[in-house]
Amino acid sequence: MQSVRSGDRWMLRLDENEDVLGAVTEFARREEIRAAALLGGIGQVRRATIGYWDGTQYRPRELSVPHEVLALSGSIAQADGAPSVHLHLTASGPDFEVVGGHLLGATVGALLELPVATFPGRTFGRPMSETLGLRRLDLEPGADV
Amino acid sequence: MQSVRSGDRWMLRLDENEDVLGAVTEFARREEIRAAALLGGIGQVRRATIGYWDGTQYRPRELSVPHEVLALSGSIAQADGAPSVHLHLTASGPDFEVVGGHLLGATVGALLELPVATFPGRTFGRPMSETLGLRRLDLEPGADV
Amino acid sequence: MQSVRSGDRWMLRLDENEDVLGAVTEFARREEIRAAALLGGIGQVRRATIGYWDGTQYRPRELSVPHEVLALSGSIAQADGAPSVHLHLTASGPDFEVVGGHLLGATVGALLELPVATFPGRTFGRPMSETLGLRRLDLEPGADV
Repeated sequence: MQSVRSGDRWMLRLDENEDVLGAVTEFARREEIRAAALLGGIGQVRRATIGYWDGTQYRPRELSVPHEVLALSGSIAQADGAPSVHLHLTASGPDFEVVGGHLLGATVGALLELPVATFPGRTFGRPMSETLGLRRLDLEPGADV
Repeated sequence: MQSVRSGDRWMLRLDENEDVLGAVTEFARREEIRAAALLGGIGQVRRATIGYWDGTQYRPRELSVPHEVLALSGSIAQADGAPSVHLHLTASGPDFEVVGGHLLGATVGALLELPVATFPGRTFGRPMSETLGLRRLDLEPGADV
Repeated sequence: MQSVRSGDRWMLRLDENEDVLGAVTEFARREEIRAAALLGGIGQVRRATIGYWDGTQYRPRELSVPHEVLALSGSIAQADGAPSVHLHLTASGPDFEVVGGHLLGATVGALLELPVATFPGRTFGRPMSETLGLRRLDLEPGADV
């Protein structure tokens, strides 16, 4: 991965065969990013698993052929003392049809470009919501306690 | 809704059953945001109505089951003295197929995260274009008069 | 095209019948933008050609009827002394189904709004990768030599 910064903005370039969630999480850990938006990266994934939240769990779907990445959007928060990366993938296959969902896992294909916008001075949380049964972004974790 | 700011950037978190267009419009009114880009939020909508512009009107399509939000992009301008919010929705359903279009209305499902980038010192307009038959973003409304 | 700036952020408005890649390239040349992310524009394309990278070449698909633009994301770099614009298009047609891929060409329909985030002090490169057979974003071209 390459990563460059300009003010409160980063551009990441992930490389062939990198694990997307692992690489973004490691980036957040290394740069101590505690609050950020991930803004619509493009590129290609070699394979990916996406999920649809059915109210109880994520039902998975495997994408087993390379797909163009049309968007990889989400956020970086902190949960249990570590970076929590939440991404949704929009991707198109050989027939140009588009599939998408919650990103459960992905491996980079030819390349992946991912812009990141940080919120200096902020820490986002991602506590488990008992009501929803999933982790929910909390923009002011201190204020909620 | 939660909303936090860092410089000229906001993150919004909308909550279950909130009306998306109403909540973003109210946010813009409260914070006096007159020029902004809405940058690819993620989350879930419980239901939504999207439209396809056929040259004369928006043909509507109802999404009546929860969809993952893959992108919610657009802009905030001013029209007739009030915030004008224009959003396009990209969303995936239980079969992972993706549908999208002009957002006519939506209700938040589990949650919705929406990054906002403001343009301090700017006011965008959204006057009706007689030629197009719809409101069109005008980045320099004063300059056009 | 209209274009306004606020700090390190631009909003572009492209108009009916403008060539998307030509207009963004000309904008980058005129404003001397050497490193930027293109963040999920919305609007409409009258027609477009998208591509799927099959490992050797982009297989093209024509979109011959107007489509709503759900995202137009990518980056601006420098290659061979000129701006290099890389965009992926996500678009929905009259049936609300979504298609997408690498943008090979597009003509604006009713309008197109495109937010741009620049990286002041940075120059991104886009050299040809012999391994991949395509141009790949290089965030630190000086460092690679």
